[in-house]
Amino acid sequence: MASESEAQRALQYEQTLMYGRYTQDLGTFAKDEAARLRLQEGDTARPRHPSELLEYTQGRCGPCRVCALQCQRFLISKVGEDWVFLILLGLVMALVSWAMDFAIATCLQAQKWMYGGLDTNVLLQYMAWVTYPTVLITFSAGFTQILAPQAVGSGIPEMKTILRGVVLKEYLTLKTFVAKVIGLTCALGSGMPLGKEGPFVHIASMCAALLSRFLSLFGGFYENEARNIEMLAAACAVGVGCCFAAPIGGVLFSIEVTSTFFAVRNYWRGFFAATFSAFIFRVLAVWNKDEETITALFKTRFRLDFPFDLQELPAFAVIGIASGFGGALFVYLNRKIVQFMRRQKTINRFLMKKRLLFPALVTLIISTLTFPPGFGQFMAGQLTQKDTLVTLFDNQTWAKQGISDEFEYLGILEAWLHPRSNVFVTLVVFILMKFWMSALATTIPVPCGAFMPVFVIGAAFGRLVGESMAAWFPDGIHTDSNIYRIVPGGYAVVGAAALSGAVTHTVSTAVIVFELTGQISHILPVMIAVILANAVAQSLQPSLYDSIIRIKKLPYLPELGWGHQEKYNVRVEDIMVRDIRYVTLNCKYRDLQQVLHSTKMKNLPLVESAESMILLGSIERTQVGALLSNQLSPHRRLLTLRQKALSEDGHRLSDPSIRFQISTETSSGTPARPALRKPLKPALKRVSSSPADSPPAGSTDHTGIALKSLFCANATTEPTEAQGTAYQKAKRVRISIVEEMILGDKMTPTEILEWEEQQLDQLVDFSSAKIDPAPFQLVEHTSLHKTHTIFSLLGLDHAFVTSIGRLVGMVSLKELRKAIEGSLTGKGVKVRPPLASFRDSTASTTEADTTALHQLWDRHQHHHMPREAGPGGDDDDDTTKGQ
Amino acid sequence: MASESEAQRALQYEQTLMYGRYTQDLGTFAKDEAARLRLQEGDTARPRHPSELLEYTQGRCGPCRVCALQCQRFLISKVGEDWVFLILLGLVMALVSWAMDFAIATCLQAQKWMYGGLDTNVLLQYMAWVTYPTVLITFSAGFTQILAPQAVGSGIPEMKTILRGVVLKEYLTLKTFVAKVIGLTCALGSGMPLGKEGPFVHIASMCAALLSRFLSLFGGFYENEARNIEMLAAACAVGVGCCFAAPIGGVLFSIEVTSTFFAVRNYWRGFFAATFSAFIFRVLAVWNKDEETITALFKTRFRLDFPFDLQELPAFAVIGIASGFGGALFVYLNRKIVQFMRRQKTINRFLMKKRLLFPALVTLIISTLTFPPGFGQFMAGQLTQKDTLVTLFDNQTWAKQGISDEFEYLGILEAWLHPRSNVFVTLVVFILMKFWMSALATTIPVPCGAFMPVFVIGAAFGRLVGESMAAWFPDGIHTDSNIYRIVPGGYAVVGAAALSGAVTHTVSTAVIVFELTGQISHILPVMIAVILANAVAQSLQPSLYDSIIRIKKLPYLPELGWGHQEKYNVRVEDIMVRDIRYVTLNCKYRDLQQVLHSTKMKNLPLVESAESMILLGSIERTQVGALLSNQLSPHRRLLTLRQKALSEDGHRLSDPSIRFQISTETSSGTPARPALRKPLKPALKRVSSSPADSPPAGSTDHTGIALKSLFCANATTEPTEAQGTAYQKAKRVRISIVEEMILGDKMTPTEILEWEEQQLDQLVDFSSAKIDPAPFQLVEHTSLHKTHTIFSLLGLDHAFVTSIGRLVGMVSLKELRKAIEGSLTGKGVKVRPPLASFRDSTASTTEADTTALHQLWDRHQHHHMPREAGPGGDDDDDTTKGQ
Repeated sequence: MASESEAQRALQYEQTLMYGRYTQDLGTFAKDEAARLRLQEGDTARPRHPSELLEYTQGRCGPCRVCALQCQRFLISKVGEDWVFLILLGLVMALVSWAMDFAIATCLQAQKWMYGGLDTNVLLQYMAWVTYPTVLITFSAGFTQILAPQAVGSGIPEMKTILRGVVLKEYLTLKTFVAKVIGLTCALGSGMPLGKEGPFVHIASMCAALLSRFLSLFGGFYENEARNIEMLAAACAVGVGCCFAAPIGGVLFSIEVTSTFFAVRNYWRGFFAATFSAFIFRVLAVWNKDEETITALFKTRFRLDFPFDLQELPAFAVIGIASGFGGALFVYLNRKIVQFMRRQKTINRFLMKKRLLFPALVTLIISTLTFPPGFGQFMAGQLTQKDTLVTLFDNQTWAKQGISDEFEYLGILEAWLHPRSNVFVTLVVFILMKFWMSALATTIPVPCGAFMPVFVIGAAFGRLVGESMAAWFPDGIHTDSNIYRIVPGGYAVVGAAALSGAVTHTVSTAVIVFELTGQISHILPVMIAVILANAVAQSLQPSLYDSIIRIKKLPYLPELGWGHQEKYNVRVEDIMVRDIRYVTLNCKYRDLQQVLHSTKMKNLPLVESAESMILLGSIERTQVGALLSNQLSPHRRLLTLRQKALSEDGHRLSDPSIRFQISTETSSGTPARPALRKPLKPALKRVSSSPADSPPAGSTDHTGIALKSLFCANATTEPTEAQGTAYQKAKRVRISIVEEMILGDKMTPTEILEWEEQQLDQLVDFSSAKIDPAPFQLVEHTSLHKTHTIFSLLGLDHAFVTSIGRLVGMVSLKELRKAIEGSLTGKGVKVRPPLASFRDSTASTTEADTTALHQLWDRHQHHHMPREAGPGGDDDDDTTKGQ
Repeated sequence: MASESEAQRALQYEQTLMYGRYTQDLGTFAKDEAARLRLQEGDTARPRHPSELLEYTQGRCGPCRVCALQCQRFLISKVGEDWVFLILLGLVMALVSWAMDFAIATCLQAQKWMYGGLDTNVLLQYMAWVTYPTVLITFSAGFTQILAPQAVGSGIPEMKTILRGVVLKEYLTLKTFVAKVIGLTCALGSGMPLGKEGPFVHIASMCAALLSRFLSLFGGFYENEARNIEMLAAACAVGVGCCFAAPIGGVLFSIEVTSTFFAVRNYWRGFFAATFSAFIFRVLAVWNKDEETITALFKTRFRLDFPFDLQELPAFAVIGIASGFGGALFVYLNRKIVQFMRRQKTINRFLMKKRLLFPALVTLIISTLTFPPGFGQFMAGQLTQKDTLVTLFDNQTWAKQGISDEFEYLGILEAWLHPRSNVFVTLVVFILMKFWMSALATTIPVPCGAFMPVFVIGAAFGRLVGESMAAWFPDGIHTDSNIYRIVPGGYAVVGAAALSGAVTHTVSTAVIVFELTGQISHILPVMIAVILANAVAQSLQPSLYDSIIRIKKLPYLPELGWGHQEKYNVRVEDIMVRDIRYVTLNCKYRDLQQVLHSTKMKNLPLVESAESMILLGSIERTQVGALLSNQLSPHRRLLTLRQKALSEDGHRLSDPSIRFQISTETSSGTPARPALRKPLKPALKRVSSSPADSPPAGSTDHTGIALKSLFCANATTEPTEAQGTAYQKAKRVRISIVEEMILGDKMTPTEILEWEEQQLDQLVDFSSAKIDPAPFQLVEHTSLHKTHTIFSLLGLDHAFVTSIGRLVGMVSLKELRKAIEGSLTGKGVKVRPPLASFRDSTASTTEADTTALHQLWDRHQHHHMPREAGPGGDDDDDTTKGQ
């Protein structure tokens, strides 16, 4: 988003936090910018109309032309409205989804055709069966790797991170979009147990980002970041919605998977776009004559009048609980596979060298095992994922006892029947094999999701239970006159919802299965199973997406557990970082330099003075760097030189006096400051060996030393890459000063060094810096639970901890994460962090509270009352009372 | 909640805001309190077990007893877990719902029986038909009025307000619960067009509140306020869920209706409780042999294979749009009826005198019009609401052209057939009559909702469209070989969802109809219609619940409209209150007194000094009152007297000197302060006529004057009732001092007055006050949109506006509401408030920003740099640069 970053640069303020962002300014700027762009567009891309206007306004068609132009303008203004965007998004995604489904179906058809055509020779058949997916997967992996490695995997974890406000680079670009679409088509076309849902969430988000960039050519409405986030949330719903033709389930699933707090205000966006998208997606199927009318994707035909018996409910509950354990196991297995691959260095090194070997190998193994004439005959290997689901949701009972002879396996159902074994064996083998296959296949570096494979396994498990029940109660359980046989297909639906719910930690899979099957008659069994599965899975493992977030080390905030009572015992003061660097209002440029050297924090707190520590705002690291580089800029130096030269005659005396004044300022300040800073002693560590602390009177040194100190600072402190850029720039400027000076400046390097040292000793003028005047503040006694809520509500990255206006610490996502995970793992007694044990009850904290206030108050008394006590005594007072 | 309010009193801090609340302290306190209560309980209510334990521990059964006791303890500890609470809540609500349904059905049956038994005489029939509901409604109104007037109406608006964090008194008590349950049963049993849904949300919430109070007897877990709010949110879902047996729809509907931001973390609670509740609710029906197994409440049997044709979609869209207008009209009509009744003073006075006349009158009119042999024959008057819905969702087509003779109206369907008119007339009359009847009936002061009546009207409208379509295309639209006739029942489903969605501004009515009918095949038509209806209705009128909130003048925050682009143009600085009272850290008690006199604000900002205006925290009004009353307490006075008496000999001189010091402090401070306060001149208006400003040396006056000044202050300033209580208390204390003194104190009134004046001149010691150290802060440039988001996210009531740490204003819900509604009504050009026009672009605001900073910085320079410039000059500087 070029223009957006431009806007940010212009404002010199990066928008990453919801709170305290300059959205207003950004919005205004963006509109101006867009207006400018539109004007340019009008001049270049659409030059016809203005000229025509000029030509025709006086002619006969003049009014018509003007009218047409106004219409056009009206339409363009409409482009900025939400619903236009959402309709376009839905339309595009429906087309993409349908086209991809078509391509995937063609690919799978081709494989089937090849396999069928070579039925004379098993070896050739095997070769065709194995080579085809291997080639496709390898191509997919290679293509994605080359074009955009960000396209690998599900995309839901990344979207969750992005919606939290974190900017992931290159995740929403056209390149990634192309890589994901093509890679996913190939991957799914291979027939591997991979899913489409997760990647579709990512694809829809990219589509939304691209669309908003495209539409912003017509108006500035899409430059607003808050709005873009809202649109991304809607896009996630569209992704799920058009993948399953499940608008409601899509919205709910995307909310559950990507958000922690959801604005009901944005609810309709998701519904609107997802409904439109699902509608178009299904209409395309009708127009393509695949369907007679709009119906569900995996339509079931269970009886309506008596869907299930009350006495069957325990069986559904068993499915739920077992799915919970199964889901947790799946997540565990998936993570272990990834960790194993990473840890085994020899394997890893080998695979890293030949990046495409691992996908090919995995595909080879899986496709070998599913080869229908081979082991595949015991696990319905010839069925595609879609066919498998259709058969599993089938209305018939496969294992009718006694009457199994007369039961005809129709069409694709035959795959489940093996002449030498029975349906139960096939189902068990299918479940076991697919389980590890899916867990393994989803680790392949291609765009793929795990929802669909898990869904199929769940359906198979449900079917297994259902068939067992049908075998156990051949005439149904109901004791009345009417005989209602058990419907194993219903069990399959319940199992599918339960297992996918367990893996993703969502309840909305229930809604997805209703929309997918077009029947809601099993609502209570499905809900019961899904809730039980969630209860079990959530207490054992994180969700698959959270697991991937942790594996990928993306920034995240873990959820508080189900029973989070103990979290109330931890407070911010136990987890906050007390030793933070800060910028004071009356500091010198040298202090800024030191702060930049000593911390990596992206936002520095600005306090009134080291003594009062009253938090005034926060200033960005880049801003500090800019201040510093500006102070030492050659431009300023030349200006000073010129002024000096101009006023040399009249004011010759004043110059040294000024310098003297500054140096006394420094010398008088230096001994005083450590004492002043005592209340927060470790807050600003003074690196005494720092070159900046070298005596300012060091003008006896020569150029070599000056340069050395410049470069040494560079070499010894090693500011981290990205974060140090602003300061690096400042350095570069300084170096360029040196170069410029060498080339033709009047000042000698020694003089420059001297001048710079002088400059560093000046007080900082913050008037040109952009300061966030209201950074988020917490109190020491804020509970962990509350902190977590606020962080996830506002999408915060860090918050300052204040005590009656005084800065006492900082909490960032990292500390919060550590605290939550620490207490999550150490369930029980060891929940409280070490510091918490020093605290007893309400009384003591109130005391601490009042002490802090008292201190401030005392200080004030000293200030405003008769000033007999010198500043030294004042400080001593503070020190003794300080923490 | 006695113990909670006790806790609040003990902490001297009221919990109304999520942010900055002392939940931690409260939690700790509540646990201690609960432990204490439990101990008491153990001693009194359950005295058996401890005594038994003492008896048997040495005996043979000792180990068993100990084990049993441990089991009991374990169970009691489990009581604190969320799922136990949710299961209990679900169970209780299912029982309540089922019992109420049973009672209502019995009532309706009785009416039918009476009406049927008297079919020999039309007049008697009419009397029975009319009297029965009139009596029931009048009883309901009277009963509710007497027991708990809070039980009147829907309850959803109140719950929305409560979930925002506002404490409504008496809304969640046992009395209200009883009144609501009995009142609702009678009201619905009368057969009036009233609904059960809204009141059920309220009943479930009350049930949750009562349950948590009951369970807190076993442990302190339910004392946590944040948790109670979460449980209330879940209870709302349960209310809808067990009313319609619609767990998913219930959760979504309750979220849409009551929340603005929703924590996905709490999602499962709602699902869990609502599912359990719906399950039990339906199981009860099975056990009662009403149903064979668990199915939907209004089961439909539409064909699955071809639910609707693509070409029927325009008709569904028409239903959606028409429902949107209809919904808006309903809300408008409802509001107008209420306003009309209020405005007509003569009617009003008459009705107020005879409170039960209005309900009786309305019931009389409505039941007369629905009298089946009378006008009721044209509007299926004899059908109950449930029967009406069943018939409207019926699978048959009523108006089969040409074959209408052979079509048999079966059972209750007959009601729709009139021998002298056709179905269309009946439907149109039904819709028109029910529309105003429902709008009127929902204004009756009985517990009732409007969802169900609207749902029925929507279904009738859908049916009308469906029947018209069926009449238009007798053989269906599909051009293929297969003939698929149009299903008017499907249209009824769509209409019901669309109209109820339009009235309530929700999308989740779609899910509710799927769960209610047990069929999801019409998902796309329903979604399209609901979204269109919402789009139309939301642009015309607020939702019914928001409308009621406004009528009832409950605190609320209006939603930002659909296209809220223009909101970005308004900033906090345009809407904030600049003229606020504040407390400074170095103020005197006299200043506190003045502040209390001059403002009604519940939270006062505490600033460092009037000069710096750096915000340190906020202090509650009650706290200020407590400080003041403490300072002037007779206890302190007596203590002073005693100390004086003790140290009279040695320190006789020191006392006047102290007084002198204080008085010089005042006299030196008074001329300086106005100048100091100039930057925010109107911030603290000094009421010069205030008795507190009378010269402190006024000891020449006598007792009469002292008392007069005390009581005059009371009489002239008239502090508002509830808000002034703390100060009133302080006054009362002072009065009691006077009284006590008269009775037997050693001091004369003059001395007391003198002493009090002295005390008022002392500096305030804030160490005993509870200060919220991090009140919520906004920046001047925060946009209205962002402010709205933050207010609704955190449930704020007010926020202070700061500029680089300096307090510059305050925004409360009121200002925000005014700003939003101002810009909502004045759509178009007049959106910007007057002040906004003075502001141009980004550049100028940045300037203002830096100016403010500069000012602070300058001040600092002056303070910490050589102090040549006196404080006067400093202040002048500030003044010239001030706003």
